[in-house]
Formats: sequence, structure tokens, C-alpha cells
Amino acid sequence: MRATLIHGPRDIRVEDVPDPKILRPTDALVRVTAACVCGSDLWPYRGVTKTSGPSRIGHEFVGVVEDVGDEVGTLRPGDFVIAPFALSDNTCRHCRNGVHTSCEHGAWWGGEDEHDLPIDAGQGEAVRVPMADGTLVATPEPPDPAMVPSLLTLSDVMGTGHHAARSAGVVAGSTVAVVGDGAVGLCGVLAARRLGAERVVAMSRHADRQALAREFGATDVVAERGEEGVAQVQDLLGGIGADAVLECVGTKESMDQAIDTARPGGRVGYVGVPSGGAELPIRTLFAKNVAVGGGVAPVRAYLEELLAEVWAGSLDAGRVFDLELPLEQAADAYAAMDERRSIKTLLRP
Amino acid sequence: MRATLIHGPRDIRVEDVPDPKILRPTDALVRVTAACVCGSDLWPYRGVTKTSGPSRIGHEFVGVVEDVGDEVGTLRPGDFVIAPFALSDNTCRHCRNGVHTSCEHGAWWGGEDEHDLPIDAGQGEAVRVPMADGTLVATPEPPDPAMVPSLLTLSDVMGTGHHAARSAGVVAGSTVAVVGDGAVGLCGVLAARRLGAERVVAMSRHADRQALAREFGATDVVAERGEEGVAQVQDLLGGIGADAVLECVGTKESMDQAIDTARPGGRVGYVGVPSGGAELPIRTLFAKNVAVGGGVAPVRAYLEELLAEVWAGSLDAGRVFDLELPLEQAADAYAAMDERRSIKTLLRP
Repeated sequence: MRATLIHGPRDIRVEDVPDPKILRPTDALVRVTAACVCGSDLWPYRGVTKTSGPSRIGHEFVGVVEDVGDEVGTLRPGDFVIAPFALSDNTCRHCRNGVHTSCEHGAWWGGEDEHDLPIDAGQGEAVRVPMADGTLVATPEPPDPAMVPSLLTLSDVMGTGHHAARSAGVVAGSTVAVVGDGAVGLCGVLAARRLGAERVVAMSRHADRQALAREFGATDVVAERGEEGVAQVQDLLGGIGADAVLECVGTKESMDQAIDTARPGGRVGYVGVPSGGAELPIRTLFAKNVAVGGGVAPVRAYLEELLAEVWAGSLDAGRVFDLELPLEQAADAYAAMDERRSIKTLLRP
Repeated sequence: MRATLIHGPRDIRVEDVPDPKILRPTDALVRVTAACVCGSDLWPYRGVTKTSGPSRIGHEFVGVVEDVGDEVGTLRPGDFVIAPFALSDNTCRHCRNGVHTSCEHGAWWGGEDEHDLPIDAGQGEAVRVPMADGTLVATPEPPDPAMVPSLLTLSDVMGTGHHAARSAGVVAGSTVAVVGDGAVGLCGVLAARRLGAERVVAMSRHADRQALAREFGATDVVAERGEEGVAQVQDLLGGIGADAVLECVGTKESMDQAIDTARPGGRVGYVGVPSGGAELPIRTLFAKNVAVGGGVAPVRAYLEELLAEVWAGSLDAGRVFDLELPLEQAADAYAAMDERRSIKTLLRP
């Protein structure tokens, strides 16, 4: 089959790789309907994180079950399934606590399972899925093709934006600021409004992203960054800042901006993978009583809840995809996102 | 009158100072019934923080109103009042959000009010209280003398322990670990049980404090620190760690221990004033989805709620006082706490 590999910085290739097959009785084989490129895929693409030799890449996909192992109980060939960006058994103590990304048997796409068998990544034609009963969630029936992009967001960005909003304690009536206008930040806007936020300030400098933020329910947009941006958000939100801030970038600058934007007693929910020297300034947090929560999003925990709304047509997160390319043009998809020509690019095998 | 001053490290003196009087129409004059020494008073005592010249000290007291300014509406001479460790107007936007320690007109005992007038500290015979309506809370009637120690804990340690428990998200059924066996940590045990925690592990190496922790409702005691202590708490709590950890010390070691003791998806509530290089390790927090909240405790926000239970006799936090001395022996009180001969020392003017 064909699959995407990263060979090094800015070197993305779609190549022939062995066809996946069922290796364990708990596996499923999934034919990929749609995959996509994640902001975090740009880190090795940009050389910020190191790539050691050609590696499979991609951790977001939806598709159709082709085959299942003997011990798979919840899935059948023909099921349309959503794959969260982390594999989990959905039964261990951490999964029962809703922290599937800490699953005791957890694994990652493109990595290895607990039997040291390689796991395919998401940007390919097909994927062997270990722990299929725990990892995959099937839709009630095959979806309308127009719904596929929104279902695909449940693999990562919509669940991650939701995790940011939940970690920031967004409730009905909250005032919210969102730092970061990537697909996750935009989904964070949507998630905050869905949870009942009264005001949502999107911090964005790009007209296309500002427009989508407003479509997703942002009540205000602030283009400035740093101190000026913080001051503008404070002005908009009662002169004191936001009850809840969603930090969806992961740099020291974005985290500092998020902390400064929170009102005393407010909360920062962060989901951006921390980069650089981003240790949290405890004295500032202590003096202001600002809490910080979040982390690698357990999107599996939120999947049924969010899927119900996508299925009902009331959660249209798929609008974050503004470019669609065939899998063979994966390299173009990376370039488009790297150059910010695309918010998020969908790949069709 | 007589009041306590710190002249420098290990140099505590009780001296004659000017009698306080009403300076502003919003002031009250309070005759101190009981005061006490705080763990944070030991910082300048030990020379960890610098003392610049003789300074009034003490921020926890209860007493009787002697006189009030013309604009004071809620207090009358003869009222028995509790003074939180921070002054607040109880009306500004931050106070309305329950973050009285960020009050827009806030001030500190021993400091200056917003008119640059000096404010007395707590370890003396009497105190001028600016913003008296906002700051002070009166008991329904004069208390039984036996209740005074518990009322005094509402100035700081009981409210602070409660803030740690609330910030750690303790709810009915929570599993809890408490790092720190000072008066705040012990009150944290009491607060966690009061909020319905099912298991509370007190981390303490001192027999007297272990005993009081158990009296306060600790279900388990772990004497070990560091990795061994973390492993023991995990063993006790389902092999995964605590839902909620109360960090009541403020050092890097204690914070690391608290973070390691939390289960994935758990929360650390911290109230220890951060000392040393205690920046929070964001990558560890991110990977485990451990949230950190807390800060300088807005005890004023909790005062009515906790006072109701002290008044009803169901919250006996005053047992943290294991030594009582006349104000004139304030230096002995500091030495007793510094040498850990006393958990917390009450001073009687």
C-alpha cells in the first residue's frame, strides 16, 4: 500500500510499504477514508524535533473496518470508525478515570504496540489497529460523505480543543480567551461556546482564521499579541481578564500570554505540546491564584459525547479543513500548512 | 501599647508602640484577644527573607471591636471579630469572584493602607483595621473562651488548608495526599475530610503531627519522603496515586513530591509560599495531565462558611495550637516553632 514517510526536515514522501494485516486477535484492519496533517507533524517537518531515518507519520484518520481479529467484540467489517490520536484499551484504571492518554497499555500511531509489533501511522491507505475495541469508535451507520471532515476532527483537534476548554474550567457564562488560531485553537472557540461561554475572545492575526473563529462563535477578536494583546482582552472582559484561557500553542510566549490574560482566580487550560523553556512561573501563578491544567488530550474520553453532536449535525468542526489533497500530494499538504496557506489539510488516500 | 517587632534574624522583641486609633471613617479599632505565629513568619525569623529595620509582625488575630469610624456599618463596639490574613473591601470585582487576596484595595497587616497610613500587625495588643466592613467578620455573639483557638485558625491556617483542598478539586469520594505536616497541612487533612474525601494520606515524619493528622481524619500516614514516599502513597491509593494532592510547604522538593504523588489526570492544590527555584515542570504535568492550582489563600471568601461550622462545634481546627504563651514571650513562641517543639503557638496579649 501507499503511506507517508518523513525522511528528514521538509522531506515528506509517499512510498510503497507492506500491506498491513491482522497480527493479534485484538487487532482491526482499517481502510483509511480520510487522514490529515497535524500542527505537531510540522515539528519534525521543520526540524524542531529530530527525525531518525525514514518514519511513518500521521495520527489522525477515519476509515472503514476491513477485517477484525478473533477477540474483537465491538466492531465488524464495514463499520465506519474514528481513530483517536492515541491508542488505549479503554478499560484500565487511567482510562476509567478518563485519562486515556495515560493508558497502561497505551501506544502511538507509527510506534510499536505492547508486543513490540510495529503500528502503522495515519497518513496511509490502511492501518493495523491494536486494541481495536478500546481505541476505535464506530459511527451508528456509514456517514454521509459531507460529514467525514467533522468526524475526522474527533481524531484530534476537536477533542483537543474540548480538552483545553474543560481543563480551563469553562462553564455556562464564562468569559474565555483563546491563545492560538490553529485548528486546535479554533476548535477551542467552538468547544468553549458549546460549553456555554458567554464571551469568547479569539486572539488571531490572520483574516481567514479570524473569520472562522467568528463562525465558530467567537464574540471578539484581538489581533495584538504580548502586553498589548493582554491589555485588549482585559478591556473587553470587565477590565480584569478572562475566567478561562485556552492555550493552544505550546511556546513560552503563548503560555505567558495565557497566564497574563487570566483574571485573578482564573484558569489556563493548555494543550499545546510544550516547547522550549516553558516552565511555569509559580510565583506569578501563586500571587494571582491562576490555575494551570491540561496536557496531552485524552480525546478518546470525549469521543462518544462529541460524536453524538457531529452525528446530529450540530457540531460542524470540519470547517477547519480549508484544503483537501490526494494522499500522493502529502508533501504539498505539509508545505501548505507550514506556510500557513492552509489552516488544516485533509488527505484522501 | 505592646506589640511584637522583628529586628532581624532570630531577633523578636515585644516593645512599646503608639496606641492605635481610628484614622479613617472606615476603620475599626480591635483589642486583640488572641494572635499567633505563622510558619511564614519563620522566613524572616530564619533570615530566609530579609528584614529591613525593626518591623511589626503577625497577620493572624481575633479580638473585640473597641471603636468604629463613622462609615462602618456592619460592626459595633463589643463585637468579637476574626481578621483574615489579608485586608479586603469584599466588594470589588476580585472579591466578588472570591479572590479577596487580589482585592483592588487590598492591603497587608504591618503594611500601609491605600492612604499610605501604617497598619498595625497582628501580634500586639490592639490593631487599627482599615476597610473594617470588608475585612472583619463578627461572630453571632461573644464566643466561649474554649472556642477562641478554632476561631483564630480562620484567620489563616484553616482557610488556607481549605483553599488547598478546594484548589486540588477534593470532592466526595476523592483520594487525597497531603504534603506538609505543619498547621496548614494538618488543616488540609481536616478540610479534605470535611469535603468528603474517602482516603486522606498524611505525609509526616513526626509522631505528634501524625497523631493529630489521624485525629483530623487522615486514614493513612506515610513517613517516607521523596521517591519512597511517592511509591508508598501510590500503593495505598490503587497503585496509581491520588486524585488530589495538597502541597502545603512551598519548596521545590515538596512540589515535585506532590506532582509525582498525583495520579494521571489528578490535581495539585498548593498554598505553600513558593521558595527557591520552584518553577513547575510543564512537560511532566503535560504528559500526566496533572493540573496545578492554588496560591495565596483568599481566606476571607471562606470565612462565613467555615465560621458556621466552628460556631456549631463541628470544626475543631484549634487543636493545631499545642502551645500558648503570653504576648510578652513572643520570642519564645518563635523559637518553639522554629525548633519544631510546637506545631503552632498561640499568643495572649
